[in-house]
Amino acid sequence: MTSVQHISDDELAEIYTFAVQLGKDAGAILMNFARARWSDQGDGEQVITEKDSSVDIVTKADEDVEAFIKSAIEKKYPTHKFLGEESYSKGASRDYLIGAEPTWCVDPLDGTVNYTHLFPMFCVSIGFIVGGQAVIGVIYAPFTAQLFSSCRGRGAWLNETQRLPLIQNQPLPPNAPQGCVLSVEWGKDRKDKADGNLHRKVDSFLTMAAEPAGRCGRGGMVHGVRSLGSATLDLAYVAMGAFDIWWEGGCWEWDVAAGIAIVQEAGGLVTTANPPEDTHDAPIEDVRLGSRLYLAIRPAGPSPATGESARQSQERVVREVWRRVRHLDYSRPGA
Amino acid sequence: MTSVQHISDDELAEIYTFAVQLGKDAGAILMNFARARWSDQGDGEQVITEKDSSVDIVTKADEDVEAFIKSAIEKKYPTHKFLGEESYSKGASRDYLIGAEPTWCVDPLDGTVNYTHLFPMFCVSIGFIVGGQAVIGVIYAPFTAQLFSSCRGRGAWLNETQRLPLIQNQPLPPNAPQGCVLSVEWGKDRKDKADGNLHRKVDSFLTMAAEPAGRCGRGGMVHGVRSLGSATLDLAYVAMGAFDIWWEGGCWEWDVAAGIAIVQEAGGLVTTANPPEDTHDAPIEDVRLGSRLYLAIRPAGPSPATGESARQSQERVVREVWRRVRHLDYSRPGA
Repeated sequence: MTSVQHISDDELAEIYTFAVQLGKDAGAILMNFARARWSDQGDGEQVITEKDSSVDIVTKADEDVEAFIKSAIEKKYPTHKFLGEESYSKGASRDYLIGAEPTWCVDPLDGTVNYTHLFPMFCVSIGFIVGGQAVIGVIYAPFTAQLFSSCRGRGAWLNETQRLPLIQNQPLPPNAPQGCVLSVEWGKDRKDKADGNLHRKVDSFLTMAAEPAGRCGRGGMVHGVRSLGSATLDLAYVAMGAFDIWWEGGCWEWDVAAGIAIVQEAGGLVTTANPPEDTHDAPIEDVRLGSRLYLAIRPAGPSPATGESARQSQERVVREVWRRVRHLDYSRPGA
Repeated sequence: MTSVQHISDDELAEIYTFAVQLGKDAGAILMNFARARWSDQGDGEQVITEKDSSVDIVTKADEDVEAFIKSAIEKKYPTHKFLGEESYSKGASRDYLIGAEPTWCVDPLDGTVNYTHLFPMFCVSIGFIVGGQAVIGVIYAPFTAQLFSSCRGRGAWLNETQRLPLIQNQPLPPNAPQGCVLSVEWGKDRKDKADGNLHRKVDSFLTMAAEPAGRCGRGGMVHGVRSLGSATLDLAYVAMGAFDIWWEGGCWEWDVAAGIAIVQEAGGLVTTANPPEDTHDAPIEDVRLGSRLYLAIRPAGPSPATGESARQSQERVVREVWRRVRHLDYSRPGA
């Protein structure tokens, strides 16, 4: 089970082509289910949709799309392993199950709440992992017709034609997090405990948002705070360069596998959300896919203002975020 | 100056057609300016764009689009008044200047921070006001190719063909704000004062988000919290039915004129963000366009679960929000 299969460049390119088509087809199914809920305008009749039935439709869309993706992969690549959000969440275990073998890590519908409410920020997310590393990512948001994709060594793309990030080599602000757009999520953990994750998150958001003199001089005064309700699309917009910083805890590998692949291929940095004891000097380690704690910094160019390389400026921003955020309490077995 | 001009249905329809085309053309100009900043992929050369020059380009796009819209309106409707965000903000006054005469209230670029960072949630916003009421609204977000429009008596539309809200007559949740998507903005006012707007906002967000038992039993446990960075698009998504509740203070009439027109025509309710003393019984007044304090509830149908009419259920949700939010401190002369 843990033997590393070698995958040639040609084979990887073929898998990439397959994955992109799979993403488009899966997204089209999601959109068909969504359109089925829209009121019919054709004959003037108005369909009344109740809450319960809309939840049923959403569940069915989620399950059908996962079954579609799983079956297509099993047919084309019967030796590959498959991990899907839907099948995973029906099992009892929350163990981290990704090993060295070629593995597809799929969320058939990311942004489920958005999908339920027909807010366009939902998508299908398909990651392909070899040796524990996400090497192919495909994210398709059918309502806005935005396809984000990447393959290791072949670049990251919007709609297959526009290289990501949209602006290449754009330096990070010298006074970051000022000038940065910060993306965060409120999540589902809403317990009103003084030291619970909700309060730790909001406390961190506030420090990142407040004026520089505020919060005992730690105010981040970011340019903007955004919450889309989709971890996958948060990462897609980091790869695009639209979000400078994404900080989040609590999501799972199927939420982030494709997005991390695309961000990394675009030149972004992904590490852990939780600050180490020594935020100034601790090494900045690559993200662990199953860690449930994520901090992503957008692709950048060298910074003429500071003389830093792209990586140096990204690491500077990581440390500036770590200085301002609190530890989040998410754990999981096997990661 | 304050005489009410009568505008016939036919004339209003003609103005609507003109406004929709104007929105499309203005959005195309915005998108051209945005694309000019994308790295050229054609010949493999990479354009390095510095922060300063991108700010210059954004300012130029904003000014050029406002000049384009203003000139088109002056040519077609020389007797109409024009209020644009750009020209307004260069003047010294913040007085509310909209009277009874036909007035165009325009934000050439809403979501400026998003536009600067090339996050797709930016748009042009064109409102047409008669007798102090926004009767036509056109919002065009060119990056996602989403056009929202309405004309009083002619319905509200997505891309001119799909009636808004997408799901007609969908009841509001009987236990709202549970089950609701709440849209809010962090804004630019980031002063770290205990009783400042930033803390009042975050305090309110937290009460709306927390578990029902939390916050002394006032927790709203909303289904999701979203922040897009565009008041105009927040309202567009309320009209669509994707956001159930939008609560915001601090923006201006050009940010909301078109959006309020579209929400109202779609069947939504727009009132003030600030709770009255008696949240239970105070009358729910129509929004004042220049009040800088806004609370919008999405279009709804009658509620079989509660026996309420659509309006009754919307008013119930208004009161449930008012019970959980704090007063915001925004004022302005003449409104």
